[in-house]
Amino acid sequence: MAAERGLAMATCTAPVNIAVIKYWGKRDTDLILPINSSLSVTLHQDQLRTTTTAAASRDFTEDRLWLNGKEVDVGHPRVQACLREVSALARLYGLEEELSEVARRGSGSACRSMFGGFVQWQRGERPDGTDSLALQVAPETHWPELRVLVLVVSGEKKPVGSTAGMQTSVETSPLLKHRAEVVVPERLAQMMQHIQERDFEGFGQLAMRDSNQFHATCLDTFPPIFYLTDVSRHIIALVHRYNAHHGHTKVAYTFDAGPNAVIFALADAVAEFVEVVRRSFPPAANGDQFVRGLPVGSAALPQELLAAVLAEPLPGAVRYILHTKPGPGPQLVDDPSQHLLGADGLPRSRA
Amino acid sequence: MAAERGLAMATCTAPVNIAVIKYWGKRDTDLILPINSSLSVTLHQDQLRTTTTAAASRDFTEDRLWLNGKEVDVGHPRVQACLREVSALARLYGLEEELSEVARRGSGSACRSMFGGFVQWQRGERPDGTDSLALQVAPETHWPELRVLVLVVSGEKKPVGSTAGMQTSVETSPLLKHRAEVVVPERLAQMMQHIQERDFEGFGQLAMRDSNQFHATCLDTFPPIFYLTDVSRHIIALVHRYNAHHGHTKVAYTFDAGPNAVIFALADAVAEFVEVVRRSFPPAANGDQFVRGLPVGSAALPQELLAAVLAEPLPGAVRYILHTKPGPGPQLVDDPSQHLLGADGLPRSRA
Repeated sequence: MAAERGLAMATCTAPVNIAVIKYWGKRDTDLILPINSSLSVTLHQDQLRTTTTAAASRDFTEDRLWLNGKEVDVGHPRVQACLREVSALARLYGLEEELSEVARRGSGSACRSMFGGFVQWQRGERPDGTDSLALQVAPETHWPELRVLVLVVSGEKKPVGSTAGMQTSVETSPLLKHRAEVVVPERLAQMMQHIQERDFEGFGQLAMRDSNQFHATCLDTFPPIFYLTDVSRHIIALVHRYNAHHGHTKVAYTFDAGPNAVIFALADAVAEFVEVVRRSFPPAANGDQFVRGLPVGSAALPQELLAAVLAEPLPGAVRYILHTKPGPGPQLVDDPSQHLLGADGLPRSRA
Repeated sequence: MAAERGLAMATCTAPVNIAVIKYWGKRDTDLILPINSSLSVTLHQDQLRTTTTAAASRDFTEDRLWLNGKEVDVGHPRVQACLREVSALARLYGLEEELSEVARRGSGSACRSMFGGFVQWQRGERPDGTDSLALQVAPETHWPELRVLVLVVSGEKKPVGSTAGMQTSVETSPLLKHRAEVVVPERLAQMMQHIQERDFEGFGQLAMRDSNQFHATCLDTFPPIFYLTDVSRHIIALVHRYNAHHGHTKVAYTFDAGPNAVIFALADAVAEFVEVVRRSFPPAANGDQFVRGLPVGSAALPQELLAAVLAEPLPGAVRYILHTKPGPGPQLVDDPSQHLLGADGLPRSRA
């Protein structure tokens, strides 16, 4: 906190997380309590992050909020819920579980970004949600060889927002109910063990199965929800051909509520698979860098791999690949020049 | 049977059926016994049919079989099973349940084509399959207003055959198990009631839900199976927008193991919906007739319907529409000139 002229200001970066046991469906839409536990990998902030500056002053007469430089209405129930929680938090400073609760009130899965590495969001049992918390399963240093490739797909916006979509699923999908009650508890225990043992075969297989099952429950929703497109389907088929060729799980996909693919792999498999993706989805020659983030070595593809794995290429279908890895939780930014707000509490770009 | 020079010959046409409660998965792959009951509508043979001629003679020294004029190996286990059943049948002539069993041994869902109208294929309980039979729920005259539109979609072959696909589903999909054991028994009873009551709202809603759930279990299979494409997805979205505009279920889709859509509607809704499909998927100007089968009247689309229902058009994505309705079961062809085989037992085109 930088206190100058009665002003308290802090800037913080937070990571993105990607679930390997998926969250879909609330048992309480007001408190944002999930119908099942979920588990995610926190991605490194060197490649993907959000930056937030908070400023508090006795001189300020109202709460104001800017998202990506644009002012938004603080009257939204979720924003109100967060502001209320934060002000309560002032009295309980230092309790991490409370921070998890604040994040959850904003967007359920955001609570998993409160920690680095491998994070479980517990379903919890209590109606007040006090036991529906994010907990770290293993730190980001636990599995140093694990890598993540985000395949950013061209085009189409997601047709149904996740908040509305998951509620329709809870109300209409008999398969989602079975998944939440019977399938996920078993899978969560299995996934924790695969992570503890750094068992990529088990981890990758289960991540793919759980991604597919989440999208299956979207399709079982009425009216049905589709997040996977023909391009996602081509990526899925490519991963299965690639693994079949190698005789084991070298890469694994997972898809959230959108068509982008997230691929898990161990470091020594990245270069070859990136080259396979480049051959399958030849980049449009627009000068953009196709591979971004962590460096990727070059790989020569053996002829028998090409023959077994490549199908008809789909030029331009993948816009670019972001190469990253598991990373730490939220970071406080020390450098005051990084604050997004000025001393007047307004966005710097607007000051 | 036409007996000439010791030759017995019969020609028969058989209908196509489309399931509204889907069959997917066998509990016995040898006897072809399903994991759940299913229910279908038999389509009229004036628009879609198969024609089969059987010839038997003491002079013939071997079993031979031609499919679409091309000889196929009678050594295939399914062909053998059918020939064996048919020869047993000779001694039990006239028992319709036995015919159902013969058909089932060839291709499970084919047994539902043994009857016209609305047909249930009972799961059965006995390990020998003798109670896994097709039964007529209601004749084709039961619901005279019911119409069927087959939207034949361009391109792509189905990636995974249904025989291999459904077995992988039985082995890997936890959701399919739940569907077969818990969901289908309830839905089957509901669907029978909707049909008895000629309740299109209930019938259409449940047909759509069950189609979606079948495809959801395909996606929950590992590796996942996709039969729906982006075009199927556009058809599904169009149907939902169309029904939402009208405030009730005017049309309902169902998809089998391929991207073609089958649409149910009452007769008075056909012309308008066909026009909506024509605007959404403008036919390629190749001279082919876009609407085939039963005549379709013309419909003027009100401006507010167009605004509410049409999205960006996808030219050429639907090749043509076949308009048909429920029809009768297999028919014996009296006219000897229709026999596909000559007096020598060989295909006429080859004689």
